[in-house]
Amino acid sequence: MLKDFEKKKREDNDALSEQLKALRARLLGQQQLLRDAGLPVIVLIEGWAAAGKGSLIKELISEIDPRFYNVVSPVIVPESQQRYPFLYQYNKALPENGKITFLDSGWMECAVQKFLRHEITKSEYRNRIRQVNEFERQLVDGGYLVLKIFLHIDKDEQFERLRSLAEAPETEWRVTEADLWQHKEYKRFRDAYEEFMEKTGDSAKWQILDGSRRKTAVRDAMKLLVKRIDSGLEEGRYVGEPYEEKFPLKKMQKLSEVDLSPSIDDEEYKAELKKLQTRLSELHNIIYRKKIPVILCYEGWDAAGKGGNIRRVAYPLDPRGFDVHPIASPLPHERNRHFLWRFWTRLPRTGHICIFDRTWYGRVMVERLEGFCCEKDWQRAYNEINEFERMLTDWGAVVLKFWIHIDQDTQLARFTDRQNTPEKQWKITDEDWRNREKWPQYEVAVDEMLQKTSTKNAPWYIIESNDKKYARIRTLKIIVKALEKACDDHFSQMMK
Amino acid sequence: MLKDFEKKKREDNDALSEQLKALRARLLGQQQLLRDAGLPVIVLIEGWAAAGKGSLIKELISEIDPRFYNVVSPVIVPESQQRYPFLYQYNKALPENGKITFLDSGWMECAVQKFLRHEITKSEYRNRIRQVNEFERQLVDGGYLVLKIFLHIDKDEQFERLRSLAEAPETEWRVTEADLWQHKEYKRFRDAYEEFMEKTGDSAKWQILDGSRRKTAVRDAMKLLVKRIDSGLEEGRYVGEPYEEKFPLKKMQKLSEVDLSPSIDDEEYKAELKKLQTRLSELHNIIYRKKIPVILCYEGWDAAGKGGNIRRVAYPLDPRGFDVHPIASPLPHERNRHFLWRFWTRLPRTGHICIFDRTWYGRVMVERLEGFCCEKDWQRAYNEINEFERMLTDWGAVVLKFWIHIDQDTQLARFTDRQNTPEKQWKITDEDWRNREKWPQYEVAVDEMLQKTSTKNAPWYIIESNDKKYARIRTLKIIVKALEKACDDHFSQMMK
Repeated sequence: MLKDFEKKKREDNDALSEQLKALRARLLGQQQLLRDAGLPVIVLIEGWAAAGKGSLIKELISEIDPRFYNVVSPVIVPESQQRYPFLYQYNKALPENGKITFLDSGWMECAVQKFLRHEITKSEYRNRIRQVNEFERQLVDGGYLVLKIFLHIDKDEQFERLRSLAEAPETEWRVTEADLWQHKEYKRFRDAYEEFMEKTGDSAKWQILDGSRRKTAVRDAMKLLVKRIDSGLEEGRYVGEPYEEKFPLKKMQKLSEVDLSPSIDDEEYKAELKKLQTRLSELHNIIYRKKIPVILCYEGWDAAGKGGNIRRVAYPLDPRGFDVHPIASPLPHERNRHFLWRFWTRLPRTGHICIFDRTWYGRVMVERLEGFCCEKDWQRAYNEINEFERMLTDWGAVVLKFWIHIDQDTQLARFTDRQNTPEKQWKITDEDWRNREKWPQYEVAVDEMLQKTSTKNAPWYIIESNDKKYARIRTLKIIVKALEKACDDHFSQMMK
Repeated sequence: MLKDFEKKKREDNDALSEQLKALRARLLGQQQLLRDAGLPVIVLIEGWAAAGKGSLIKELISEIDPRFYNVVSPVIVPESQQRYPFLYQYNKALPENGKITFLDSGWMECAVQKFLRHEITKSEYRNRIRQVNEFERQLVDGGYLVLKIFLHIDKDEQFERLRSLAEAPETEWRVTEADLWQHKEYKRFRDAYEEFMEKTGDSAKWQILDGSRRKTAVRDAMKLLVKRIDSGLEEGRYVGEPYEEKFPLKKMQKLSEVDLSPSIDDEEYKAELKKLQTRLSELHNIIYRKKIPVILCYEGWDAAGKGGNIRRVAYPLDPRGFDVHPIASPLPHERNRHFLWRFWTRLPRTGHICIFDRTWYGRVMVERLEGFCCEKDWQRAYNEINEFERMLTDWGAVVLKFWIHIDQDTQLARFTDRQNTPEKQWKITDEDWRNREKWPQYEVAVDEMLQKTSTKNAPWYIIESNDKKYARIRTLKIIVKALEKACDDHFSQMMK
C-alpha cells in the first residue's frame, strides 16, 4: 500500500511538473502578444511573512524575458519618516504598456501593518482603503490588467518556516522584527487582511493561494496570470466608463463673464510685490519645518503670463526647498503609462513646494481637443483628477490651481511682440498660432474643467492677467493667505 | 566729507544695480541660444556654511525660465549608509543639452567633509580627488560647460552669520550641527578646501568669490556665467581629444582565434546547472549581507544567446536583490546627456546585483559603426569607460563582462529559426539582418574593444556560445568563482 501511495505521489508530482512546463511555455508565448497589444500588467503578491512570496515571483519570472517585466519590492517606511503620499511608491512602480510589474507585497501590507502598529488612526486607515479602491479602479479603467494574489499559510506553518530560516546562519538575517511581530499577532493580522480584502475587491478580485504547497501555488498563480493575460488579449484594452462621484464644488464664473480690466499701478505693484515676497519667504521657512507639502498648479492661455508669474512666486523661495516642473508633451515612457504617472512621480516631498507649469489638466484640454485620448478617457478624468487631488489634500498638501486668464486681443498683441523680439522668439511656435485658432473650443473645455474640478479642497482661481502685474500680485496674495491658513490649521491639529 | 562718502556709496550701489540689471538681461537672451546650440551647463556653487550659496543661486535663477534650469541640493549621507558610489548623485543631476543645473554644494563639500570626519581614509580621499578630476574632464570633453565657484567668507564673518541665523526663531533650524562643527574646525576646513581646489582645477578652473559682499558676489557670479556661456556659444560644442592612460590590461584573444567547438552533454548540463545555481543562490545571500554590489555585463552577437544565459543566472537570485536592465537605443532625455548617464542612474545599490543586457560598450560598437557619435567620441570612450569601471571596482563592486560569442553560420541558423517560430519572431528584426551584413566591421570594433578595455579589475570573458548550454555553464562558473573571491576578499579586508 505504501508503495502505491508513493507511486501516486510521484505521478502527481510529475503531472504538476508537466503542467508547470506547459504554463511556462504559454507565458513565454504571451510576452510578445502582450507587447503587441500594448497591455500593461500588474501582479501584486501579498501574503504572510515566510509564505514564499519571493520564491513565487522567482518562478513566475523564470521564463520571461527581462525586457518584459520588472520586480519591485516596496519598503515600508515608518509613518513619521514618510515623505510622500501612501500610494506614491506603487504608482511609481507602474509598468509601461506591454510590460509586467511584479510587486513583492504592496499597498495592503503597508496599510495593514501601519494600522495595527497604530502609526495611522482608524480614520486614516479607512481613507487609505478608499484610496486603494480609487487607485485600482483607475488602473483597471486605464487598461491595466491587475492580478492580486494573497499567499496564505496558517500560524503553525509560519512558525516552522520562520524557525527554519532563523536557525540557518545563512538565512537568519531574513527574519525581521516585523515578521516575528506579525507571527505573535497572527490573529489580528488575519482579521485585518480579511477585512482589507473584503473592502478592496471591486475592481480587481483577490485570489487566495495555499502557500503551504509551494509547487501547487506556483502552478495556480501561473494559471491565473496566463488566464488574465489571455482574457485581456481577447477582449482588447479596456476603457473604463466615466464614473460620477460627488465632490464639494466651488461655483466658478464662466470665462466669458470674467472682468479683465483690473490693473495695478507701478508704485503699488513694487510695494506689494516686496511685501508679499518677504512674507512668502518667511512662510516657506515655516512650511518646511512643519513638513507641509505645497503644490501650485498653473494653467492658462498661451502668453497669458504664466512664466513671469511663476518667477515672481519662486523668487523669494529657498532653492533647496522648491521645484518648478514645466510640463510639455509626454516622453515615450510617460505616454506609455497612466496619464497621472508623470505627475505622481513629480510630487514634492513633505515640506517642499512644487510648481507645475501646466499640469494633469492637459487631459481635459489639449488631449481632449486633439484627440490624444478617447472621449471616455477625458470624461472619466474629471473624477480621476478630483480623486487624485483629494488624495493630495488628505495627505496634508496645500493644492492651489490658477487659470491665468487673458482675452484674445491681449494674446494677439503678446504673440506679435514675441515674434518681433529676438530674445522672446523661442516662446512662440506655430503650435501657439494653431491653438489660438481653436480658442472657442478651448474655452468650452476650460469652462467645463473649471466647473467640474474646482473642489473645496483644491480650488481653482481665475487670475485676471491682461495686466500681468495685477495677476502676479493677486496670485501671490492667494498663495500667502492659503499658506498662512495651512500653518495655523496644522498647529491647531497638533493641539487637538 | 561724510556726505560725500555716502553719496559715493549710493552711486556705487546704483551702478551695481545697473550692472546686475544688464547682466540679467543678457542671461535672459542666452537661454534660447543655449537651447539652440544644445549646450549643457553645470554651475557648481561650493563654499562655507552661511556664505550665501542658496541666495546666490536664487539670484542667478531669478530671470531664467524654469524650462531651462534646475537646482539640485545634494545630501551628504554618512559613509556607512551610502548605498551608491561617491559621484552617483552628481552624475544623476547632469542637465540635458541646452539646460543649466545649479548645484548647491557638491563633490568638494562631500569629499572634504567625509575626510575631515574620518569617514574615509586618506587613500580613499585621494581616490575621490582622482575620480573628481576624471568626472570633470569627461564632462568638459563631452561638451558640458562647467563653472565652479567657491563662495568665501572669513571665520569672523561666518560667526556673525551663524549667530544671526541661530538667534532668530524662524531661521534657527537652518544652523546644523555640521555648520557649527565646520566653524569650530575652520582652519582645517580652509586647508582642505585649498588643497582640494589646487588638485582639481585642470579641466575647469575654480573661481573664488567674496561672499561677504552679497551684491558684488552675485554680480561677479553672473558675469562669470554669462561669460562662460558666451564663449561656449562662440566656440561651439567642445569635443575632447582622445586621452591615453595606462590601465593594467589582460591580454585577450582575437575573436577569429576563438575555438567555438566546446559543448556539453545534456546530463552534465543539468547536473552542473543545478549545482551552480544552488551555489549562486547561497552567494547572493552573502553578497547581500556583506553589501557587495555586483555588476554583470552582457554583450555579444545578435542571437548569441544572451537572453537565455541571463535567465539562467537570474533564476536562482532573490528577486528582491537584483535587476536586469535591457539596454536599447537611448530615449530622448538619455541621448541628450553624457553617454554614461543612463548607466550611472541604473547602478545597483550595495548588496544588489544588476545585470546589463547590452551596456555602455554600445559607444564603441554600434555608435562607432553607425556614426551616432564622432570619431573622437568613441576613441575617447575606451579611456572613459576604463575610468568608469575603475570607479566601480574601487567602490567595491564586482564587475564582470561577457562577450557571448558565436560564428556566422550559427547566427544564420538561429535567425532562420526565429523567423520561422511564431513565439520567437519578436526577437528578430530587419535591423538584425542589417547588422549581420556588417559582421566584419563589428568584428574589428569588438576586437579593439576587448584589447583596450579588459582591465584586471573589470575583465572581459569571451564565452563560446555555439553550444548555448556550454556557454551558460561557463558563465555561471565565472560568476560563482568571482563572487566567492569577493566574499573572501571582503572578509580579509575587514580583518585588516
